[in-house]
Amino acid sequence: MASHPLLAPAIDVLTTLRQRSPLVHCLTNHVVKNFTANVLLAVGAAPAMVEHPVEAAQFAGMASALLVNVGTLDAAQLGAIDAAVPAALRAKRPWVLDPVAVGPLTLRTTYARSLIRQTPTLIRGNASEILALAGLQGQGRGVDSGDSADDALEAARALAETTGQAVLVTGAVDLATDGETVVRCHNGHILLTRVTGVGCAQGALAAACVTVAPSPLVGAVAAALIMGVAGEIAASRARHPGSFQIALLDVLDELDAETLAAHARLS
Amino acid sequence: MASHPLLAPAIDVLTTLRQRSPLVHCLTNHVVKNFTANVLLAVGAAPAMVEHPVEAAQFAGMASALLVNVGTLDAAQLGAIDAAVPAALRAKRPWVLDPVAVGPLTLRTTYARSLIRQTPTLIRGNASEILALAGLQGQGRGVDSGDSADDALEAARALAETTGQAVLVTGAVDLATDGETVVRCHNGHILLTRVTGVGCAQGALAAACVTVAPSPLVGAVAAALIMGVAGEIAASRARHPGSFQIALLDVLDELDAETLAAHARLS
Amino acid sequence: MASHPLLAPAIDVLTTLRQRSPLVHCLTNHVVKNFTANVLLAVGAAPAMVEHPVEAAQFAGMASALLVNVGTLDAAQLGAIDAAVPAALRAKRPWVLDPVAVGPLTLRTTYARSLIRQTPTLIRGNASEILALAGLQGQGRGVDSGDSADDALEAARALAETTGQAVLVTGAVDLATDGETVVRCHNGHILLTRVTGVGCAQGALAAACVTVAPSPLVGAVAAALIMGVAGEIAASRARHPGSFQIALLDVLDELDAETLAAHARLS
Repeated sequence: MASHPLLAPAIDVLTTLRQRSPLVHCLTNHVVKNFTANVLLAVGAAPAMVEHPVEAAQFAGMASALLVNVGTLDAAQLGAIDAAVPAALRAKRPWVLDPVAVGPLTLRTTYARSLIRQTPTLIRGNASEILALAGLQGQGRGVDSGDSADDALEAARALAETTGQAVLVTGAVDLATDGETVVRCHNGHILLTRVTGVGCAQGALAAACVTVAPSPLVGAVAAALIMGVAGEIAASRARHPGSFQIALLDVLDELDAETLAAHARLS
Repeated sequence: MASHPLLAPAIDVLTTLRQRSPLVHCLTNHVVKNFTANVLLAVGAAPAMVEHPVEAAQFAGMASALLVNVGTLDAAQLGAIDAAVPAALRAKRPWVLDPVAVGPLTLRTTYARSLIRQTPTLIRGNASEILALAGLQGQGRGVDSGDSADDALEAARALAETTGQAVLVTGAVDLATDGETVVRCHNGHILLTRVTGVGCAQGALAAACVTVAPSPLVGAVAAALIMGVAGEIAASRARHPGSFQIALLDVLDELDAETLAAHARLS
Repeated sequence: MASHPLLAPAIDVLTTLRQRSPLVHCLTNHVVKNFTANVLLAVGAAPAMVEHPVEAAQFAGMASALLVNVGTLDAAQLGAIDAAVPAALRAKRPWVLDPVAVGPLTLRTTYARSLIRQTPTLIRGNASEILALAGLQGQGRGVDSGDSADDALEAARALAETTGQAVLVTGAVDLATDGETVVRCHNGHILLTRVTGVGCAQGALAAACVTVAPSPLVGAVAAALIMGVAGEIAASRARHPGSFQIALLDVLDELDAETLAAHARLS
């Protein structure tokens, strides 16, 4: 599977990321801010969480990309997101939407759907979240998905067509699409689901990736590949979630193009 | 001491917890959200921090239990708690109150006392906090207790009688009571006090435990036992707080009924 | 370099810190609260994050020192800081200002400058932040400094003269000054920049240090020395940022006067 046409450009994303060190403005949930920042630092990007609406608007144009994660949406975050997204669009910065737990929770579901109109460069979610965001019925419970990524294929395609950008559905197999091309990444490990915030950090990683990728789709594939391969290698070093979390950060720091190429399983 | 009558049911709590994976709605302080989520994942439960008042009310009925920790109480959290607790009661979900630093700080003391009327299924605090919550004088300073758990025995009994539920006083020896029965757990290690948020995470663990326990008291004993035994085993692997924190998560993941039985010291 | 006149008093700070366990009230950014608390616990201090304005004002007089870090300034934090700083001054408690990302962001720059009038006992920032705080032009981007500490020497001196207290400029070489004496600490390791929140935690460490130091300048030197030496030792044990972060906490716990003396490089 290593000869997939998007493999070489996806691997280049990591190399370029380490050279350019894009600054990623993260408006993300309270549970994962520290881990997200450390994941970005490990891959060579720079994190910044600027949250006052006035500052978030100003900063959106200074950063290379914006991440919006609605995991612990509250009044303060709604204000920050409402300020930052239009500012990012005005500054022509890519932005990633992570619709955490969209579906069962009405307020964030309505809100996340309204954000679709602001054409996120990439939407990253599990199958349940992507189904719900597209207005279809998923099996989600909180942040867990009851569906496989392929169950959300049509929903992902529809969202990508609506935004004209890309969608990444993460799961045991990850699925990335720009509405036409569909790429599956078979890398990953079950321990990635036993550490809080891995999916959220992957959204931030995806925001970093799209700043240097030739297309949002390639950025999405790169984010799936980097986290999936790093998870596999980390799981070969650590068998329990505490030490796995630390090994994952170490591996993300060590990861290079050759290692990615040797482990990649795209289809 | 391993033949205590509540030992077998407390051990069963861990087994059942891993099977059922209860979803715990955590309204907890900003310092410990990540660690709390990782502790819940390690024991097989599922964490969710839903904080907007509108969502917190909706989510309380979707989750299996609610945790309220007043450690970094602010206006936003007051709104979330005020919405979530009545919703949890309406949905007949158990809820745990963790009165962090109640005593020296007036606002949270008054507020936490008002929450007692909403009959928390379990109250978990150190001796100073339990004494202060009951209106008695403790020796606390911030989150540290200047008292031993037994100093708060009468206060814990009085609170349990008021709520008709259970109280867990944590310390070098933990003490659980439903107002009549008193159980002491002698497991634990001093390193548990050198990592921020262990007590707070134990409150979330207790919320998970009461969802599957035959009584709040057994849930409290299970939470004391699981964290105490895991702390002892982790301390045999790591002698300093950084690596101890990671070992603790690993051990919580590995922990099974036989290990609990072999280490348990209840009286 | 080990014979610097401030070395002995700076080393005494660590010893006294472990004996007295000062309670540090941290009003700090959302990304680093957990790590900051664990750094304080590792050196023997006690952390507390009390954030409601009413409680923050009450608590400022109960704690031994206050840390104000503007990293994720929002409306709630502005309220807490506005309440806590005057309360700390009234209670004659030392307080540390960490002007994270001051310079590029207008709101926090104006706000941090207004805090100077409340004479922080210590200001800790990178060179870009110290230059910007003093009204000079830096090269900063988010939390990264584009300048070396010595580029901010005159700015640091000017700020120290304005407040009548001390300034710590951190970088590859750290620089501490009270406006007259200038001390440089050459300890440290590049991995300290690859873990989020090390600088912010150093601000909290500095707040703990000034509570037991004979002068703010000695407190600043102690904070530079402790983190720098711990970083060097941790880097000898861990070569990647995940495991380095854990090793750093372990080393901060182990660190004693002899180890500090053996590694110190002050000039």
